[in-house]
Amino acid sequence: MKTLAFSGCLAGAIDCDVHNAVPSVKVLYPYLSDYWQDFMAEAGDPSLEPNYYPVNSAIAARPEARGAGFPPGADPEALIAQVLDRTGAKRAILNCLYGVPALYNEYWAAAMASAVNDWVADAWLSRDPRLSASIVVAPQSPDAAVAEIERRAADGRFVQVLLPARTQMPVGRRYYWPIYEAAARHGLPVCIHAGGGGAGQPPTPAGWPTYYVEEYLAVAQGFQGQLVSLVAEGVFAKVPGLKVVFAESGFTWLPSLMWRLDKNWKGLRREVPWVDRLPSEIIREHLRITLQPLDEPSELRRLVETIDHIQSDQMLLFSSDYPHWHYDAEGPLPAGLSPDAVRNLLFANAERTYRFHA
Amino acid sequence: MKTLAFSGCLAGAIDCDVHNAVPSVKVLYPYLSDYWQDFMAEAGDPSLEPNYYPVNSAIAARPEARGAGFPPGADPEALIAQVLDRTGAKRAILNCLYGVPALYNEYWAAAMASAVNDWVADAWLSRDPRLSASIVVAPQSPDAAVAEIERRAADGRFVQVLLPARTQMPVGRRYYWPIYEAAARHGLPVCIHAGGGGAGQPPTPAGWPTYYVEEYLAVAQGFQGQLVSLVAEGVFAKVPGLKVVFAESGFTWLPSLMWRLDKNWKGLRREVPWVDRLPSEIIREHLRITLQPLDEPSELRRLVETIDHIQSDQMLLFSSDYPHWHYDAEGPLPAGLSPDAVRNLLFANAERTYRFHA
Repeated sequence: MKTLAFSGCLAGAIDCDVHNAVPSVKVLYPYLSDYWQDFMAEAGDPSLEPNYYPVNSAIAARPEARGAGFPPGADPEALIAQVLDRTGAKRAILNCLYGVPALYNEYWAAAMASAVNDWVADAWLSRDPRLSASIVVAPQSPDAAVAEIERRAADGRFVQVLLPARTQMPVGRRYYWPIYEAAARHGLPVCIHAGGGGAGQPPTPAGWPTYYVEEYLAVAQGFQGQLVSLVAEGVFAKVPGLKVVFAESGFTWLPSLMWRLDKNWKGLRREVPWVDRLPSEIIREHLRITLQPLDEPSELRRLVETIDHIQSDQMLLFSSDYPHWHYDAEGPLPAGLSPDAVRNLLFANAERTYRFHA
Repeated sequence: MKTLAFSGCLAGAIDCDVHNAVPSVKVLYPYLSDYWQDFMAEAGDPSLEPNYYPVNSAIAARPEARGAGFPPGADPEALIAQVLDRTGAKRAILNCLYGVPALYNEYWAAAMASAVNDWVADAWLSRDPRLSASIVVAPQSPDAAVAEIERRAADGRFVQVLLPARTQMPVGRRYYWPIYEAAARHGLPVCIHAGGGGAGQPPTPAGWPTYYVEEYLAVAQGFQGQLVSLVAEGVFAKVPGLKVVFAESGFTWLPSLMWRLDKNWKGLRREVPWVDRLPSEIIREHLRITLQPLDEPSELRRLVETIDHIQSDQMLLFSSDYPHWHYDAEGPLPAGLSPDAVRNLLFANAERTYRFHA
């Protein structure tokens, strides 16, 4: 079994994308009303654990994250030891990926989101002050999402709002704006994380692919569409205080997208007058992206050049994506970065993005 | 009115993406059977001119391409003068974008494809030996497409097969393989050009966007999905002689996509055993991409680095995308390339890709 061999280099890091798992839907029952408990019992205790990383697939999770009787990421002691104690990281943000956004029953979705947040607070955040978490919401119901944000905002252990990358409509649409306004009102970034099921549209504009490798590749294309939507619809003009964090999106596609968007905005800006400066400037100001999984070229020089093409050292946030398995024992940090760049990546950018509790 | 001011630097160039336009659907009638002439007269002489570049939009076509009484690109004399005589280019490949792939009536689509090709041969290719053309086919009916390829293959003035980038299914699907086999059998590359309507799926994985700038940006995402499909489905293993040309796709996204595909193929190659080496190697061998429209960064150095990240000087083909308007009077060629790179880009790569008639 491999171990996390990068302990030395992560001292003081803030790990901005760590996945704690719901071990069984039963742990959420104490946080659900009698009505929803009955409803779920009748439905056979359906689990909403997503299947992006099938639990029984050997390559879906790091070996050290597999414990006896728990799915990877479901054991707080193991997570704290492996993500924090052994690496020297000083903080981790828990993104509990649970299938709330996939529910068509909006009231059930809202109840489940709230139950997950209650459970995260009790079972995780109360256990170690180095843990922070995202607020799970049901983006399909902005009013319920806003209510959930309001309910958590006073608890400084929740540091952002979590949305899925595949949504029923592009995330820039006015329909979602109340979520962004509520988040910004409380100084919370909105994290858009890979996953979600869309509203039946295929994961690529080319149509329904055959193989999982195609679907996995398409995650990056989905994020590209969402970023263009956020900019074109004017979300950042409407909510100037908003920060958006892309998680598990990759980022090597970002320079090319900014070039294309800048160029075509020059020709078409008449239709989006609220985009009143170069889109790339707006993106550099408002977008943050987590590190792993990183689509790394074989030659390090090309990665360093690509990071330079972003033209900002403020955008990348360190993440391990624990317990998922994206890199080898050398660890999650690319080599070849300057000490300043490493400092920004490991914790300084996160400290500028989030308001952490003491 | 601006003129094409890049005459000096294009001597000997092969312009691999030039758009001749059907001036009126009536010019196709002589090439249609009585049945289809009656059918279309009853339907009110429907034009299949696509609306990607609305004729009456001032920014859709270069000013010099606008003549009296013709849509841009519909006057052979003007096109020959502006694309060839004035620039010193030695050859142009005509990609006649006509809405054949959008027709649900497969028999009508096949008849229209054939009529367009007959008309292109008579009205354009017979006029100047420097003109070559793509074979318009109805990809929704691979059998009809194969028949059309067989009908044109002996005419060396047709140098490739033209497919749209938005298709009813991803282009790698086995359904389309007969088209690739027929093309390769006759030494014809398959050009996948921006456009087409898909089968109702949105142009981004995020869903239906609001603004045209979003749809325009999404073209690059669609090509990414199509490239992954071609590789993952094993098209290049099945048809090893096939070359695919992406036209109006942009290419600055290519390095990032190859890095992501190589990485995830390493984890998931078991499901696509026909992909028996790094996907980036397959892509470099089989894919060619036209130059314009180019998503250029503000600093030339970054473009030069991105072209270097492709790790091949064989892939880019010169194109002006005439009569569309993507660059200013400085011309379509990026600066900063070595003389060898310019030579490859302007004509040598095209000569290795296409078999031109004398």
